Amino acid sequence: MVIASPRFPVDLSLFDGVRHSPSLPSLERTLGHGDRKLQDFCIPVNPYFPTPEIFADLAKRLETILKYYPGGNESVARALAGALGLDPATVVMGNGSTELITWIDLLLVKDGLATPVPTFGRWTDHPEEVGQRVRPWPLKAEEDFRLDVDAFAAFVHRVGAGAAAVCNPNNPTGACLCRGAVLRLLDALADRDLVVIDESFIDFADEDEVPSVADEAARRANVLVLKSLGKNLGLHGLRAGYAVAHPRLAAKLREALPPWNVNALAEALILELRAHLAEYEAARRRTVADRRALERRLRSVPGLTVFPSRANFVYVRIPEPIDGVALRNWLLCEHGYLVRECGNKLGSDSRHFRLAVRPPEQGEALVGALASAFGQADRMHKGAWSGGG
Amino acid sequence: MVIASPRFPVDLSLFDGVRHSPSLPSLERTLGHGDRKLQDFCIPVNPYFPTPEIFADLAKRLETILKYYPGGNESVARALAGALGLDPATVVMGNGSTELITWIDLLLVKDGLATPVPTFGRWTDHPEEVGQRVRPWPLKAEEDFRLDVDAFAAFVHRVGAGAAAVCNPNNPTGACLCRGAVLRLLDALADRDLVVIDESFIDFADEDEVPSVADEAARRANVLVLKSLGKNLGLHGLRAGYAVAHPRLAAKLREALPPWNVNALAEALILELRAHLAEYEAARRRTVADRRALERRLRSVPGLTVFPSRANFVYVRIPEPIDGVALRNWLLCEHGYLVRECGNKLGSDSRHFRLAVRPPEQGEALVGALASAFGQADRMHKGAWSGGG
Repeated sequence: MVIASPRFPVDLSLFDGVRHSPSLPSLERTLGHGDRKLQDFCIPVNPYFPTPEIFADLAKRLETILKYYPGGNESVARALAGALGLDPATVVMGNGSTELITWIDLLLVKDGLATPVPTFGRWTDHPEEVGQRVRPWPLKAEEDFRLDVDAFAAFVHRVGAGAAAVCNPNNPTGACLCRGAVLRLLDALADRDLVVIDESFIDFADEDEVPSVADEAARRANVLVLKSLGKNLGLHGLRAGYAVAHPRLAAKLREALPPWNVNALAEALILELRAHLAEYEAARRRTVADRRALERRLRSVPGLTVFPSRANFVYVRIPEPIDGVALRNWLLCEHGYLVRECGNKLGSDSRHFRLAVRPPEQGEALVGALASAFGQADRMHKGAWSGGG
Repeated sequence: MVIASPRFPVDLSLFDGVRHSPSLPSLERTLGHGDRKLQDFCIPVNPYFPTPEIFADLAKRLETILKYYPGGNESVARALAGALGLDPATVVMGNGSTELITWIDLLLVKDGLATPVPTFGRWTDHPEEVGQRVRPWPLKAEEDFRLDVDAFAAFVHRVGAGAAAVCNPNNPTGACLCRGAVLRLLDALADRDLVVIDESFIDFADEDEVPSVADEAARRANVLVLKSLGKNLGLHGLRAGYAVAHPRLAAKLREALPPWNVNALAEALILELRAHLAEYEAARRRTVADRRALERRLRSVPGLTVFPSRANFVYVRIPEPIDGVALRNWLLCEHGYLVRECGNKLGSDSRHFRLAVRPPEQGEALVGALASAFGQADRMHKGAWSGGG
């Protein structure tokens, strides 16, 4: 069934055969020239940073920034380390954390990689692409996808995986380990080649207590912590992430990466970061508060299962018999809301959605749309609201 | 000898122990807060593109552009191919051509790589870093660094190199092969694993006849042509390059690259490119005319050897007994002019400079400064105008 004259006639074929959701701008471009804007609940961002003043300053300097080569990897890492109070020898810059994962899998993973699932797709897909067996450890919905670190460490040993990767908080579930639990995991896996703690979303774990282990990564020979500046700073288009690791591990990664892998706009923002840390902190806290509010409101929707989140997104399960793809398409074509239907994630299925935290009024609107969809559950069957004929 | 109160007290230690010149902004930052601006004759750019209107439009949309993930590699390649009339299956996007070279060396080069020298440093340094022997073929100053393609092809066979890389026009010499010569080289090396023609500067070869072989690369199984959007569009900070190759070769490269390796600002410019091709063509022609003018003016400086260039830079040899490092430091600290002294390039030495083409009045000023330096040659000895004490 096709939606008769949908309000947002998005070309749904963009969802076909892709591993990740199509980007909001690419979907918007299929709407033709109108003023209809889609609303992104798919990509978790920081809606309050950079501030309009920071954007205005970058815009003013855009030509100068882009005309010249940026500094090399090491020079940008030094600037970032200075702003964040890290040892530059332990910091490696990436063209997004995705680039770092690519090189980590190539250079540092041997004898396979164990990872809890569901998790960030790059950790389940990419190792296999470079010939590394992935050992998935299924997290359980009935335990709110909490990772039992002792059981996971035993599993890593049992299957003989040389490396392990754990997202903390996890993506897409939002479940988060406390610092003590992560340290216990690092101790238990001290005999492995590599343990990656992917902290891409950790700045949104809590207002006051962010359970990062970056300080430990800098000291331990086999631990690497990943951070995503795109996610923290709310700028996915910027492509900037970094790793914190023991200087020996960091050097190995840094030397393999292409020089000048960080573009000049990302460098410019990093050079200004120290001056804007207070604004960043305020934006971070506000996003945490918005997540708490969204989670609370989602719990009020009958039939929706809401998993506790410590990230800037909330993982939910929609009620039977609603079909996830049908609901995703309906939300997009009728309301202009893009959500992440997680059917193509290992350890998930299409009845699980990841909902990005947005400012309260937008979150409220999404909650309303979901409630309205559940009120007409009989129309949300498989094949309904499809793109084709 | 230290320059007493230099007009531009740049921290010259930034040149120590680095393979590539420090960037202009990084040198400027050592000047402290003043309004003294350095002038870049080191990095060859396109001074006339993007137009101020294009920059203004990008600046206006900056927040929207950066907030979202860019399209993946394939989607950006499709947009670029559409603008340039290429087959998308033959196009691979890179985070600068440097990223592409990195992966080419890793994935496609076997049994070593032969390359004429001097050439772009990445072609002589990086293969060795990934365990590939580099086989340098010395170009001769007395032949204006022209490549004899038949002799080079015989050399490739003789040393048994599996791959060859030729920059056309060459960097830093500016020497350029005509299309027929490149095709003869491709024919002669049809039995090799890979032949890369690095056309990063080819758009500035001539007003009317650009000797690109990208069309041939798309058809031949072992040929890959590299293009640098940063260099063509005059935006090194953007980090965008692309390869044109046979679909099988292109797929191999594309599948290994990190997804979303092109940042959203580069994507935005590529999406707008078709609308600005006429302005680009005008900028390109103007840069070619400026190079002809700079070359002509440089020939008027007594003692300077000027090699014929078909790129947006001119390769020169300074007269005995002037020391290259001393002259570079003097130009920088006394005039604020940054030039590329090529002492650390394989097949070159510190008496060779690469001078980037800039608008005529700036080129004129550089020529004047060089002539003045040569007039006080006795003060340009080794160790003069050094940074330290």
